[in-house]
Amino acid sequence: MARGRFITLEGGEGAGKSTQAARLAAALDARGIEVLLTREPGGTPGAEAVRGLLVEGAADRWVPLAETLLHMAARAEHVTRRVLPALAAGSWVICDRFVDSTIAYQGVVQGLGVAAVRSLHRAAFGSLMPDLTLVIDVDPAVGLGRAQARSGDAGARYERMGQAFHTRLRAAFLDLARAEPARMVVIDGGQAPDAVAADLLAAIDGRGHGQG
Amino acid sequence: MARGRFITLEGGEGAGKSTQAARLAAALDARGIEVLLTREPGGTPGAEAVRGLLVEGAADRWVPLAETLLHMAARAEHVTRRVLPALAAGSWVICDRFVDSTIAYQGVVQGLGVAAVRSLHRAAFGSLMPDLTLVIDVDPAVGLGRAQARSGDAGARYERMGQAFHTRLRAAFLDLARAEPARMVVIDGGQAPDAVAADLLAAIDGRGHGQG
Ligand SMILES: Nc1ncnc2c1ncn2[C@@H]1O[C@H](COP(=O)(O)OP(=O)(O)OP(=O)(O)O)[C@@H](O)[C@H]1O
Ligand SMILES: Nc1ncnc2c1ncn2[C@@H]1O[C@H](COP(=O)(O)OP(=O)(O)OP(=O)(O)O)[C@@H](O)[C@H]1O
Ligand SMILES: [Mg+2]
Ligand SMILES: [Mg+2]
Repeated sequence: MARGRFITLEGGEGAGKSTQAARLAAALDARGIEVLLTREPGGTPGAEAVRGLLVEGAADRWVPLAETLLHMAARAEHVTRRVLPALAAGSWVICDRFVDSTIAYQGVVQGLGVAAVRSLHRAAFGSLMPDLTLVIDVDPAVGLGRAQARSGDAGARYERMGQAFHTRLRAAFLDLARAEPARMVVIDGGQAPDAVAADLLAAIDGRGHGQG
Repeated sequence: MARGRFITLEGGEGAGKSTQAARLAAALDARGIEVLLTREPGGTPGAEAVRGLLVEGAADRWVPLAETLLHMAARAEHVTRRVLPALAAGSWVICDRFVDSTIAYQGVVQGLGVAAVRSLHRAAFGSLMPDLTLVIDVDPAVGLGRAQARSGDAGARYERMGQAFHTRLRAAFLDLARAEPARMVVIDGGQAPDAVAADLLAAIDGRGHGQG
């Protein structure tokens, strides 16, 4: 059985993660690869209940440590019940947000610290990390504009956090990618969706992950 | 300013923790000691919302790691917003359940492991531990009988976990207390409430904590 790959999409609000995660899953499926398309926080009933606590309410509803632990609780459900079983069965997993969002949002911008989030992740999940992480980078003004034009209010609490928050968030993702070039690739999300999709597939194929 | 003490009450369902926490707070108050009486999971609006996820629903609703992280998320809110400010102001804090419940329920009985819970606690809360922990010990059949006779459904999910669960839980608390005699004292909760209250105060006074 071919080994499954664990690929995560990261980036700020409205960068195009959900759009591209679906396209990527379809492209891999067209190659005959078994794919689980999923997202965080969420992906199981328990994790979606926790997601509700995170995406609703006032910006200062949670202290940063509590917010980090809630994301990790949702992750524990999702990883245990869906991600690890899929990988063990040889499927690929395409996950819309994962630990790098926790590091960037809670660790860097909300101020808990990168080291603190990494040490919590290790205590909870050991060495579990994605095989490849695709950071979709866009100007936050563009991303927030897209997100606010979009229907639905998923992620509304984070969208309300203001321009300075999102500017620091973009820098945080770029810093993380610079520090881990073997795992993380930055994709220009300001392009048209077809061009972004082509760049994502090229990044996967360029790292030898493309054939299942 | 006199130093505040951080005192936790632990034990299984219906042991008498909430009853005795209120009596203890009243007894200390009568001595002129400033007291914050509080409980976990809960004690702030966010933590009470997380509590709702923990005390409702099916027994297998959460994987043990997720359940541990949810308790810790509620704890982060409670510790940051209430416990640490009270202690910093010189108040005593009487807390109905704390980290030893997480160790006993999730670490021992739900199987995550004592070492795993302790390492998550350290990653999240550093060296924060109670000054004194009073374990109220009762036969689980007696405790569950009391809890089920009591009005309200707080803790109903844990109460539904069955006799074997609660028997192992009692042993877990006693093992923890044996391993940390400097911090933890076992009190016989099978006595009448007045006798339990007297034993609790004697334990506090006996350790030199009694005069604020
Ligand atoms: N490359 C693109 N160019 C223009 N619009 C785009 C592009 N990619 C996505 N969109 C649109 O922008 C909006 C946000 O995209 P999407 O939901 O995929 O972003 P996201 O990164 O998942 O956002 P969130 O962080 O809020 O979940 C959607 O309406 C989507 O159709
Ligand atoms: N020593 C005692 N003898 C008899 N009944 C008691 C005693 N202590 C408490 N009770 C009664 O038993 C019930 C459970 O007590 P309490 O709520 O204080 O327990 P608890 O340990 O907080 O339970 P839980 O774990 O469910 O929160 C209450 O109705 C209380 O009045
Ligand atoms: Mg999205
Ligand atoms: Mg109680």
